Amino acid sequence: MEIRTMETVFEELMELLQNKQMKELKTRLDDMNEADAALFLQTLPEKDMAMVFRILAKEHAAEVFACMEIDEQQLIINSVTDRELANIIEELYVDDAVDLMEELPANVVKRIMRNATPETRDLINQFLKYPENSAGSIMTAEFVDLEKDMTVKDAFDRIRKTGEDKETIYTCYVTSKDRKLLGVVTVRDMLLSPYEALIGDIMDENVISARTTDDRETVAKMFNKYDFIALPVVDLENRLVGIVTFDDAIDVLEEEATEDIEKMAAITPSDKPYLKTGVLETWRARVPWLLILMISATFTGLIIGFYESALSKFVVLTAFIPMLMDTGGNGGSQTSVTIIRSMSLGDLEFSDLVKVVWKELRVALLCGLTLSAVNFLKLMYLDKVGILVSAVVCITLLATVLLAKLVGGIMPMLAKKIGFDPAVMASPFITTTVDALSLIIYFRIATAILKI
Amino acid sequence: MEIRTMETVFEELMELLQNKQMKELKTRLDDMNEADAALFLQTLPEKDMAMVFRILAKEHAAEVFACMEIDEQQLIINSVTDRELANIIEELYVDDAVDLMEELPANVVKRIMRNATPETRDLINQFLKYPENSAGSIMTAEFVDLEKDMTVKDAFDRIRKTGEDKETIYTCYVTSKDRKLLGVVTVRDMLLSPYEALIGDIMDENVISARTTDDRETVAKMFNKYDFIALPVVDLENRLVGIVTFDDAIDVLEEEATEDIEKMAAITPSDKPYLKTGVLETWRARVPWLLILMISATFTGLIIGFYESALSKFVVLTAFIPMLMDTGGNGGSQTSVTIIRSMSLGDLEFSDLVKVVWKELRVALLCGLTLSAVNFLKLMYLDKVGILVSAVVCITLLATVLLAKLVGGIMPMLAKKIGFDPAVMASPFITTTVDALSLIIYFRIATAILKI
Repeated sequence: MEIRTMETVFEELMELLQNKQMKELKTRLDDMNEADAALFLQTLPEKDMAMVFRILAKEHAAEVFACMEIDEQQLIINSVTDRELANIIEELYVDDAVDLMEELPANVVKRIMRNATPETRDLINQFLKYPENSAGSIMTAEFVDLEKDMTVKDAFDRIRKTGEDKETIYTCYVTSKDRKLLGVVTVRDMLLSPYEALIGDIMDENVISARTTDDRETVAKMFNKYDFIALPVVDLENRLVGIVTFDDAIDVLEEEATEDIEKMAAITPSDKPYLKTGVLETWRARVPWLLILMISATFTGLIIGFYESALSKFVVLTAFIPMLMDTGGNGGSQTSVTIIRSMSLGDLEFSDLVKVVWKELRVALLCGLTLSAVNFLKLMYLDKVGILVSAVVCITLLATVLLAKLVGGIMPMLAKKIGFDPAVMASPFITTTVDALSLIIYFRIATAILKI
Repeated sequence: MEIRTMETVFEELMELLQNKQMKELKTRLDDMNEADAALFLQTLPEKDMAMVFRILAKEHAAEVFACMEIDEQQLIINSVTDRELANIIEELYVDDAVDLMEELPANVVKRIMRNATPETRDLINQFLKYPENSAGSIMTAEFVDLEKDMTVKDAFDRIRKTGEDKETIYTCYVTSKDRKLLGVVTVRDMLLSPYEALIGDIMDENVISARTTDDRETVAKMFNKYDFIALPVVDLENRLVGIVTFDDAIDVLEEEATEDIEKMAAITPSDKPYLKTGVLETWRARVPWLLILMISATFTGLIIGFYESALSKFVVLTAFIPMLMDTGGNGGSQTSVTIIRSMSLGDLEFSDLVKVVWKELRVALLCGLTLSAVNFLKLMYLDKVGILVSAVVCITLLATVLLAKLVGGIMPMLAKKIGFDPAVMASPFITTTVDALSLIIYFRIATAILKI
């Protein structure tokens, strides 16, 4: 088997398209993985994209559609007939359909709903009601449900009959007549049991499940912990209403990591890729934080203003302000970012605060002493600013690093404790706090040692 | 079904242990999910942990063991007999065994190897040879392989016979006599086909696979794209040597996000949780970057030193240095962090450089104008520093934001293009660059407008 890169494959497909060899193109695309076919379609000009999409086999078309980006999905919707649209909607898993509805303009949503069957329409409407970022918002309705008194053979027959439309068949759910969740049984359990075994006997009654109202991040982390393929979602009466599959959990974990990174960099998180957000949108996500931070940075300015007369006598002190501020900022964000990520991975709890403070104190002392020693040598022998100024700068440096690492360790943990998002408390805020405090220390020490 | 929190469950188990009701404790633990049982064991004091571990059912014990942290795994190993150890090793999937070998001290590794069967020993030794961070290093050997001329019924029989020990049975691999990978067939495909269907007829020959030498991050991203449960890994001769399962891919994606976050905050990444790293280790991961950044911040100091005489005439200018530097740093890291994350998610390529520059230019202009306008009003009516100084500060602010966002957008992309890790180029480096450039602009504009 020859290994070809995706580029080569795409070029070949392109050639088929240009030579109008549509039959061969269709065969090749239908054989392709849906994610790759979607990628190929998205490289085509608008007109060709819709045309090529319409030659795909009916079922494959819906799968490819589900892998496309929202803009391209809209283009496709606008260029297919009502009948083709109805087919796509019926083939989509309800979680993908709901995602689509949430992002499309109202008139397109109306057209889709008009073409869906009443059952699909009801299901989509029901799922649209779950709050954003809840387990309900990422679950899907296409699961296999079994009954306790079925045999493995019965179960396989049911899967054979209905499995084609299920998002996963590997974990099946055993429910009572009133849809209460009684147990789970995997296809693995069934394959490893005799065909005559009763589902009720081989099912696992210790079901780990989520509530529709649980946070989607909590649910995604359960996949990380338990290595599940799917997780059942129940309502308040323990009735099974849907499942979350591992691929959606992966997406949530990736999105949550991106959100944390954005918040740490003082950006309002967005769920759209960089190149898909408009200039105004990006501006709106960034400028409020820049404004807040700019205004809080003026406190630092006030402190400098307050010591203006001292500074004018020792202007050389000004030259070290950037180094002190930068080191404080960097030292603080090293700590805060580590702490925030550890909390978000579940490695750190508020009860570990004392451990964190004790560890950061020792690390800060080591870091501060290293930096001060190097800096002292530089000040004495390179900058030749004299022992007194060198002492002022180096003592301040040590104090700044200590302060920065303590503030960086404590602030995110406190923020989480009182219900704020710790990621928002990251580097920029801590930088501002540490800047102000370290400048005060600087000038205090300077006035004491230099007697100004 | 009553919903109990994990805390309540743990308390009940603890009570059973204290009352020496070992039989009931065993039943409860054997019924529990292995990840939860491992969590419970890890809350116990050393002596109890080993004792409780040894009452677990043989097979469950190995699963629980695989979920424990390395320190606790070592404790267990040191307190079980050679025979129990041999049992654990044989039950472990080879990827978990390899992870363990890589972290345990040499004498413990020796004891394990002495107790493993020759086959297991060879397999572990072979897998230990794959380079760190390669697909080979995260794959496992326990997959189901089928032959082309088997029927679905034959395949199910083979799964029934050997499936107990396989990490996943849901994706099966069809290989030739010389172990070349011919196709994949899922249990879903088989369940949806008649029992007499030939595997060769229903298998998918368009296999998406990875090479043992591929980067593990690339492999993990394929899971994100294709939503696979497992991915086959082949050697250079296209012989199937192992599979990577989705749960390992999730771990890799989480670890890679953590690494990126750490690098962006100027920390040498570590693969251990925060509370498990020692003070010296943390110091070593942090201090080199602080030193480099401290030394590069002295360039900023040199610039201030160079303009010392100008500054001493207009000491008021000093008060705005922190605000300008902070805003430049924040604006730059907003952009760099977004760009780095987008590149790492595959949303952005080097070929998008022009788009990025054009977008950042417009966003920066909007942000810069907003900030300058607010700041101008503040300087004129609150600080009352006069129109000339206000103009100097606001023009510099606009220039700083423009510069910061351009540097923040271009530097990570260039870094990646020339083969550096873009995450390392994030905030701190960009801050230093932007600091120096914006101070030069500040003093240039100041000397021109204020005629000093």
